[in-house]
Amino acid sequence: MSKIKIAQFGLGPIGLETLKLAATKPWVDIVGGIDIDPAKIGRPLSEITGDPGIRNAWVFRSLDDLLVRVKPDVIFHTTVSQVSAAYPQLEPMLRRGINVVSSCEELLFPQLREPDLAVKLDKAGKDGGARLVGTGVNPGFVMDVLPICLTGVCRQLTAVHLQRVVNATTRRGSLQKKIGSGLTPAEFEARFQAGHAGHAGLRESAALLAHCLGWKLDELLETGKAMVARRAIRTRFVEVRKGQCCGLHQTVVGKVDGQTRLTLDLKMYLDAPNPHDACQLESDPPLNLVINGGVAGDAATVAALVNVVPRLLRAAPGLLLMTDLAVPSYA
Amino acid sequence: MSKIKIAQFGLGPIGLETLKLAATKPWVDIVGGIDIDPAKIGRPLSEITGDPGIRNAWVFRSLDDLLVRVKPDVIFHTTVSQVSAAYPQLEPMLRRGINVVSSCEELLFPQLREPDLAVKLDKAGKDGGARLVGTGVNPGFVMDVLPICLTGVCRQLTAVHLQRVVNATTRRGSLQKKIGSGLTPAEFEARFQAGHAGHAGLRESAALLAHCLGWKLDELLETGKAMVARRAIRTRFVEVRKGQCCGLHQTVVGKVDGQTRLTLDLKMYLDAPNPHDACQLESDPPLNLVINGGVAGDAATVAALVNVVPRLLRAAPGLLLMTDLAVPSYA
Repeated sequence: MSKIKIAQFGLGPIGLETLKLAATKPWVDIVGGIDIDPAKIGRPLSEITGDPGIRNAWVFRSLDDLLVRVKPDVIFHTTVSQVSAAYPQLEPMLRRGINVVSSCEELLFPQLREPDLAVKLDKAGKDGGARLVGTGVNPGFVMDVLPICLTGVCRQLTAVHLQRVVNATTRRGSLQKKIGSGLTPAEFEARFQAGHAGHAGLRESAALLAHCLGWKLDELLETGKAMVARRAIRTRFVEVRKGQCCGLHQTVVGKVDGQTRLTLDLKMYLDAPNPHDACQLESDPPLNLVINGGVAGDAATVAALVNVVPRLLRAAPGLLLMTDLAVPSYA
Repeated sequence: MSKIKIAQFGLGPIGLETLKLAATKPWVDIVGGIDIDPAKIGRPLSEITGDPGIRNAWVFRSLDDLLVRVKPDVIFHTTVSQVSAAYPQLEPMLRRGINVVSSCEELLFPQLREPDLAVKLDKAGKDGGARLVGTGVNPGFVMDVLPICLTGVCRQLTAVHLQRVVNATTRRGSLQKKIGSGLTPAEFEARFQAGHAGHAGLRESAALLAHCLGWKLDELLETGKAMVARRAIRTRFVEVRKGQCCGLHQTVVGKVDGQTRLTLDLKMYLDAPNPHDACQLESDPPLNLVINGGVAGDAATVAALVNVVPRLLRAAPGLLLMTDLAVPSYA
């Protein structure tokens, strides 16, 4: 069985971890990376990842430059959260017949905010014979795919309620900043309103749930508030004084005919006690699921990206949703 | 969109509940039933189910008799636990191009005990252009599909440990008997050894897990012991004296290269406190999932059978595993 040739587009923290995990798989052959950082271009991936096992693979400044040397079967795309920003990066890959697994949060359900681009991506994939899916842990698993999977044993289903509590102290610095650590609560909330802070993809999770359950949402309301530090907090990356923002509390509520059918409640903050993921279904049978300790973000996101590859390659070309693919599994 | 024509093969308790649930779906048209019970043959399904909404559908003595009147798109098959017993019922359906969803426990992973029949069923489905899948709640969800789904966010995976505790007092009479209620512990264990008592499908769950995870098991050991009543127990269906068997404790251990990688621990007994389903993955990230109260057996099994239909019809013909199909969801 020939190996799957994989390249990495975007060599930030998630991209590097994805590459290192993929390199451990016997079915993967890492063939190159793409990044715009002049400090990385032209260097061997073994050096940039610190993994001497990644041989004969270099960093290129563009897809075109990579393609001169090798055509990958799959590209891991880990650069941006918005479909509008990802589109010009993704479209050429699909047209050239390269399958893409992306961490772009809005790609979990691009039909929500960018229905026209979703149609174009689907067409590019079908024309080129390539598949595209957006995944990760959140969005991509704990607040969408996992609860959807649970509804498969429901005889009746009225509502889905989800909670996720993440202890941001255990996460990377960029996330600690993204959640507003060290801002005043008012500053954070203004940034959230402007779309410059907060967790990307929560509305997409709700929209994917509604899509799978056949619910036509007439409202999809999102709110974002600061979690306020009750005492000074210091991590490896940030310092927060008492009264400052130490994280976010973001919610999405989905209604059908004025009735609340979906609630997604996400808290990501420093020193959060009892991190967990939970799901209650108002259903027959009633279901109450808890993942004690939660699903750790970065490790799980990287795993989701790599594990989806074999199932993606078995699907028909085009733009795919995680729920179009076979049941997730370790690969 | 035309409705999916559905018939029910086997009009026992699970079959009747499946039929009643299917009849509530706007995408389903119930077209008939098949049963060998002379007291049911020739009667309208509305009468047998007590659901006056099931119109123009009668009980036939055989598939051939049903086919004289109507050809269903899908048959729900709820008669037996063994693939060897199910085969002569299923094969003609597949050859005639009728898709089948079966509660036959061994069909979750028929390759384990009946690899030759699995090949034949796959061929019959491909020849006839029909799909076959075995599903339910256990096997079919809590001790296989759900934990497999969870492994999709694992970067490393060493072992999967599953527990299910069912309070059999809340279940139907046939199940209370199947688990040995009222026998002496020695009688139960002798019956278990002889294959006449116990839960069908636990080894199939383990085999499906191993298949999805790419683990070649060199051992798959099953044990079955009696749960002993500490006091007299009386349910609607059975009476158990102190010291008698009030249920079963069944385990399966799967090893790879002598190392334990899979443990499945199932307790189904009368008056069991704290019923639940649980899963611990020895993995990165480590994962610890609990479904408080567990997933109620009969309601969830019936739901799994009905909900799988739309996804099954989108798959390619042949014998399919639940993990070949798209992520389960409420339909």
